[in-house]
Amino acid sequence: MSSERVLKLGIPAGSLQKATVELFAKAGFSIADSRRSYQPAIDDDEIHPICLRAQEMGRYVGDGVLDAGITGFDWITENDCDVVEVCELPYSKATSNPTRWVLAVPSESKVTRPEDLQGGIVATELIGVTQRYFADRKIDVRVEFSWGATEVKARLVDAIVELTETGTSLRANNLRILDTVIVSTTRLIANRQAWEDDFKREKIENIAILLRAAIEARSKVGLKMNVRKDDLDAVLKVLPAEKSPTVSSLADSAYVAIEVIVDDKVERALVPALKRAGASGIITYPLNKVIH
Amino acid sequence: MSSERVLKLGIPAGSLQKATVELFAKAGFSIADSRRSYQPAIDDDEIHPICLRAQEMGRYVGDGVLDAGITGFDWITENDCDVVEVCELPYSKATSNPTRWVLAVPSESKVTRPEDLQGGIVATELIGVTQRYFADRKIDVRVEFSWGATEVKARLVDAIVELTETGTSLRANNLRILDTVIVSTTRLIANRQAWEDDFKREKIENIAILLRAAIEARSKVGLKMNVRKDDLDAVLKVLPAEKSPTVSSLADSAYVAIEVIVDDKVERALVPALKRAGASGIITYPLNKVIH
Amino acid sequence: MSSERVLKLGIPAGSLQKATVELFAKAGFSIADSRRSYQPAIDDDEIHPICLRAQEMGRYVGDGVLDAGITGFDWITENDCDVVEVCELPYSKATSNPTRWVLAVPSESKVTRPEDLQGGIVATELIGVTQRYFADRKIDVRVEFSWGATEVKARLVDAIVELTETGTSLRANNLRILDTVIVSTTRLIANRQAWEDDFKREKIENIAILLRAAIEARSKVGLKMNVRKDDLDAVLKVLPAEKSPTVSSLADSAYVAIEVIVDDKVERALVPALKRAGASGIITYPLNKVIH
Amino acid sequence: MSSERVLKLGIPAGSLQKATVELFAKAGFSIADSRRSYQPAIDDDEIHPICLRAQEMGRYVGDGVLDAGITGFDWITENDCDVVEVCELPYSKATSNPTRWVLAVPSESKVTRPEDLQGGIVATELIGVTQRYFADRKIDVRVEFSWGATEVKARLVDAIVELTETGTSLRANNLRILDTVIVSTTRLIANRQAWEDDFKREKIENIAILLRAAIEARSKVGLKMNVRKDDLDAVLKVLPAEKSPTVSSLADSAYVAIEVIVDDKVERALVPALKRAGASGIITYPLNKVIH
Amino acid sequence: MSSERVLKLGIPAGSLQKATVELFAKAGFSIADSRRSYQPAIDDDEIHPICLRAQEMGRYVGDGVLDAGITGFDWITENDCDVVEVCELPYSKATSNPTRWVLAVPSESKVTRPEDLQGGIVATELIGVTQRYFADRKIDVRVEFSWGATEVKARLVDAIVELTETGTSLRANNLRILDTVIVSTTRLIANRQAWEDDFKREKIENIAILLRAAIEARSKVGLKMNVRKDDLDAVLKVLPAEKSPTVSSLADSAYVAIEVIVDDKVERALVPALKRAGASGIITYPLNKVIH
Amino acid sequence: MSSERVLKLGIPAGSLQKATVELFAKAGFSIADSRRSYQPAIDDDEIHPICLRAQEMGRYVGDGVLDAGITGFDWITENDCDVVEVCELPYSKATSNPTRWVLAVPSESKVTRPEDLQGGIVATELIGVTQRYFADRKIDVRVEFSWGATEVKARLVDAIVELTETGTSLRANNLRILDTVIVSTTRLIANRQAWEDDFKREKIENIAILLRAAIEARSKVGLKMNVRKDDLDAVLKVLPAEKSPTVSSLADSAYVAIEVIVDDKVERALVPALKRAGASGIITYPLNKVIH
Repeated sequence: MSSERVLKLGIPAGSLQKATVELFAKAGFSIADSRRSYQPAIDDDEIHPICLRAQEMGRYVGDGVLDAGITGFDWITENDCDVVEVCELPYSKATSNPTRWVLAVPSESKVTRPEDLQGGIVATELIGVTQRYFADRKIDVRVEFSWGATEVKARLVDAIVELTETGTSLRANNLRILDTVIVSTTRLIANRQAWEDDFKREKIENIAILLRAAIEARSKVGLKMNVRKDDLDAVLKVLPAEKSPTVSSLADSAYVAIEVIVDDKVERALVPALKRAGASGIITYPLNKVIH
Repeated sequence: MSSERVLKLGIPAGSLQKATVELFAKAGFSIADSRRSYQPAIDDDEIHPICLRAQEMGRYVGDGVLDAGITGFDWITENDCDVVEVCELPYSKATSNPTRWVLAVPSESKVTRPEDLQGGIVATELIGVTQRYFADRKIDVRVEFSWGATEVKARLVDAIVELTETGTSLRANNLRILDTVIVSTTRLIANRQAWEDDFKREKIENIAILLRAAIEARSKVGLKMNVRKDDLDAVLKVLPAEKSPTVSSLADSAYVAIEVIVDDKVERALVPALKRAGASGIITYPLNKVIH
Repeated sequence: MSSERVLKLGIPAGSLQKATVELFAKAGFSIADSRRSYQPAIDDDEIHPICLRAQEMGRYVGDGVLDAGITGFDWITENDCDVVEVCELPYSKATSNPTRWVLAVPSESKVTRPEDLQGGIVATELIGVTQRYFADRKIDVRVEFSWGATEVKARLVDAIVELTETGTSLRANNLRILDTVIVSTTRLIANRQAWEDDFKREKIENIAILLRAAIEARSKVGLKMNVRKDDLDAVLKVLPAEKSPTVSSLADSAYVAIEVIVDDKVERALVPALKRAGASGIITYPLNKVIH
Repeated sequence: MSSERVLKLGIPAGSLQKATVELFAKAGFSIADSRRSYQPAIDDDEIHPICLRAQEMGRYVGDGVLDAGITGFDWITENDCDVVEVCELPYSKATSNPTRWVLAVPSESKVTRPEDLQGGIVATELIGVTQRYFADRKIDVRVEFSWGATEVKARLVDAIVELTETGTSLRANNLRILDTVIVSTTRLIANRQAWEDDFKREKIENIAILLRAAIEARSKVGLKMNVRKDDLDAVLKVLPAEKSPTVSSLADSAYVAIEVIVDDKVERALVPALKRAGASGIITYPLNKVIH
Repeated sequence: MSSERVLKLGIPAGSLQKATVELFAKAGFSIADSRRSYQPAIDDDEIHPICLRAQEMGRYVGDGVLDAGITGFDWITENDCDVVEVCELPYSKATSNPTRWVLAVPSESKVTRPEDLQGGIVATELIGVTQRYFADRKIDVRVEFSWGATEVKARLVDAIVELTETGTSLRANNLRILDTVIVSTTRLIANRQAWEDDFKREKIENIAILLRAAIEARSKVGLKMNVRKDDLDAVLKVLPAEKSPTVSSLADSAYVAIEVIVDDKVERALVPALKRAGASGIITYPLNKVIH
Repeated sequence: MSSERVLKLGIPAGSLQKATVELFAKAGFSIADSRRSYQPAIDDDEIHPICLRAQEMGRYVGDGVLDAGITGFDWITENDCDVVEVCELPYSKATSNPTRWVLAVPSESKVTRPEDLQGGIVATELIGVTQRYFADRKIDVRVEFSWGATEVKARLVDAIVELTETGTSLRANNLRILDTVIVSTTRLIANRQAWEDDFKREKIENIAILLRAAIEARSKVGLKMNVRKDDLDAVLKVLPAEKSPTVSSLADSAYVAIEVIVDDKVERALVPALKRAGASGIITYPLNKVIH
């Protein structure tokens, strides 16, 4: 583990890479050329980023080759890594839902419960987790490593354990889910020694704050409007209770300006309601970061 | 027509699809995977979106297969649909101009007026509207259906009626415009029965408000500046008369903060003028929605 | 030189074109179809844009074929153009760093100083500047024009003078830098006669203000927060000294709202510090333009 | 219809276009730039090619706008064109199988026979053929024109009639085939008057011979081998009976050379058998044209 | 293992897939749509192809899930599969050279021999072979599985074992080769039980003959010429000794026709020499298959 | 100039590169990876290929940096290179027509003859040739170097001299041709000293033979047929007079086999005529090389 004032930070290569670079951009860090190089440039001299597959990240953070890294809970568990979990980072390729690894069989299979697989073969990329899943249930199966495209093997072996973000791929291959083996979200993890180093810990924490602020901002918008003082109570009732709006006075003392940060899903219902309650000049605007 | 609390909403497939999905995103609705599937996912359980060609939308809304849909005035007219026109949605692929269907002939043709086409053949995708156009003028022509790439047929028949957003394609094929047959903009339309259903009508109206607010925001920016109270009158005179700026007091009582929403075309001239009138710390920022 | 109320404006074609069109968009001008046509449409009737290679821009502005144009200091110098340099525009394809033309030799070459090239051959696209560079140093070399891909010629001749934004291409070809020949940034230039015309000069100045405001905004964010009056001093101390924040009163008189524009690089350190100093409801938002 | 020594020939635009241009190339005609232009260049001054949709080809050949054209039997039938069918051209995008238009319903539909659709709606691009299909069976249905992507409408109406080359798209949309409505192959068709013109008829017949020879050659290979005279009978017995091999004498009079054209499917079994029968120096080579 | 008259044949998915499909096409089998589906269609009812990664092929053939398959000697060895090696198939993505797995270190590493890695970490996709390599040499290293992009890990661990077809990737990552760990070519392998089944064995042997004949033909051309009988000896001397040309008589008895199959590398030197020796009308033509 | 047994051969980079690599492939040389690298690999140890722009080729061959190279007659003339022109190579990007550089003006220009340009400005990439063209005609014009996209400058200056393979680009820019300035075809050129070296000269001549044989083969096909001896005269009369067909005897002495190489344009008319004259089993097959 290096002791200089540089943080070796693992960036997940592959399917999460583009989303991660965009998230860092929103957080204020510009990572260049990350698709081509495993050592992309970043506009912060105290960070040394390295692109690695999510599957390997935990091992390299655990060993101290990296000080910190971003990977999934699934692969942390698979590799049984001894690392510090700094925080959850609920972003992913397409949605902010957690990913699930499911045990699946062909639709036409006679297997209806995990127990029916006794004596069979299960193909998966996640062999450690899968072996423990069956061991916990005292079901004796052979777990074979699959080099990708696992769905297509469901009809060559007896069952598969495969990742599903949306279920589309399972449907396309006409598979049936028996059970969820593990639910996973993305995590920021740190090496135990790095976490004890003051410089590195503060650096990791700052990254955590900025990334989380950028994630938070993705589903929020700023909302502004002018409200006649007489309508203020009515308008405030419409606003979500837990929000505390900023009410500022205006030159025209009959009016106040109200500003509040709202969830973009709430906004869809809120805007018409505010209009009816008497608000005028309603606008919403995008946000880069939100820190509570 | 379904009576459950779900709105079947037609999204135009094809050339308008990408722009429509982006508009819904600005309006607060995330539509996923719309290119691949005719039933894309949307993050609102009360909406069931279905992708269809603009040409067919009116028929399916008229029949009640859909509760509402987005299509062009041209195709509503072509199919002579009995639907409710909820509102105009002035967005399109490239510009916010209306699209025009024009009657065109080869540059070298002797035809100079529609009347000269008497006894001839006209190729078009929009046969109903074209037939009525000539019938109204008592000109006898045969109108033939064209399966796309209509411009290239202008030299095989006598004239064509074709859509033109920018005129580029007509120029490239060396055609001359004789007349405008129909001017069209995009519309949100509703099935008559659905419009009588309280849930569906409110849902459609909310979508209309949010889509229009997003369209409005595309050509607007928020403008903020600080103004010394002595300069306030001068600055206010520069601002467009119809706008009512939000003037708020500052800690430093010699200054006020002014905030106003302006059209992005106006902004180009306004910003230098404001600077000359004494405004300082001028910034502009993007907007997601503007509701008057 | 035309005397009508239209400004003939040269847009750099090629590697800078996409970035330039995006910059104009941020500045409030929509340039359409610029990749295909050398006369793209723009939504301002007083501007007539023409796309030309940066290498030729200075000559056409100098001759009065164009009233103004955007090009690099390197090519202005190369062509020894008699033009008005209106302002610097620090944007480029990838970064906001200036570009450098360097004298380079193969890593394995025995040449260690420019003087060692006496009697040799140097290949470059920038022959005028290169000839003057060697003439100033009284080194006798033959300078040969290179039609692109100059790096690969370093091993065919004795040295090259080539542009380097990031150094990647030099490294890939295993070249060693001997010296910097010229450092260049992008400039807005004007024809001398056009600059004396009132209409054209104001138009050029407005474009300069708007482009610079858009460039400025790219590295800035708006920052807002609420602060308890008791914490105000502590919070203000954290803010960069040269910034004057807008402090506005709130309905709840125990709090004030603070708004300030900060550099996005500063923001990364500022946000955690502000939180510790007592600020709440911190948000940052993107900007379109910043005019000091 | 033109009487000069030029044949106006319709080339199918769209999905068949690339395969058609490749077929003409094999037949000895180079058609350039066919993707961009509806009037591609060809290296034969007596042919004037025009690209049109297969759907419209029959109508323009029937009207004499074109002298001849390539289109499908399906669209000839749909448009009820009065044209001369010169010959079949068994090539297509992917395979040499005929295409089928099938009547299909959602897998979960209760409809099991065409008769069950009585009173329902059927969507299709091929409305004429479909109406006649149901009229022949005295089933009363409304046939609606579908603007492409017909599969996705199967669940909006009651059934569809859609083209299927491989069945993949039907499976992907989970549809069930009720019946085949029409089987179609590609045809070379001619205008009746053009067919009576000596120049045009010979030109069309030559094109037919060359295109058919090129199609024939695609599934054939030339096969050569040397055979000891003692083994000749054994080898000849292995060869397909209907083929008459070319047997030529060699300098070494103990051997003869045998050459024969065989189907590439037969070749797979033939080659090992010939080897066992004593043939040596077996080679196969590609063919451009085969004329019986 | 199925006993019907169908051969389950594994096709390597991924980097070899395109080359494999092209090879089968040359051999006379058309495999359709292989990129999208793991069960592509083939125009031979007695073959059922399944696409799998080369890494897994051996295991599935060994288990009898497949009757035969194409994979590399490296992965057969890695998985220690008990299979029949039917023949070598010397084709690959880019060249016909065998691939090599090499032990490599960063150029700047102090390690110069495998022994210097004692106690270190080696990353590789081929862990079994690598472990045996070090065990044989009694060197104690930890071998870690690498999920692709192994070159970039050479600087995170101590050494890597990685595939190199051309050495380009090693050079780009500035690595130095210490040793070759295994040399591999592509193989056709069969399941032991399938090999005992008459139908399957003949089917596999036929595929082997046809694939090898197609590979052979890729580097061969047919060469024909006419030779005056007086020049025959001179011409025959120029031809490679091991070839036996087919000499056939012509109508003009002063001449003979000579035909021979030659290697395309030899052809480059042969053609000018033959011309000088008196041959006329020399042509060369491509071959589909060559069977000795 | 190197004296080892290696030929330094310049390959034209850019628009001719792909066609050149394909031509070498047909000629029997495999050039790999030429798009990425200026020193592509070739499967002949005696050739060292270097990719350079056609514009620069002549200079580097003249200087002896290269022994030989492929470039256009236009650039040889422009650079006034002292080189050996070995042979013409009539291939190009799209067609086998020579390219022309033409003097062109906007369609609407009043200029109708080169003389009308007296005192004007002409933009071109080919400044040397253009200056000589006007000097020869004693017309005084300023010739300015244009960095590509010359057509678009025709309206900024008075005229242009630009390359035209097909005239498409001139038409698209609405230009009118005044005169042809130079007609050019591709050439193989050699350095004068290299041409005196026995090894290099033979190597260059072999390359010339093989490239020309491959070009020749592109427009030729092999034609074979069987003819009854009674029909032989009739068939031979149909064949082009200058061809001497190979007539070989067959086992069935009533027939002979005829083989001849014909131009693919002739083949289109020949094949039907041969059939009518009694030939049977007619096939045509592709050729790799044809040497007269």
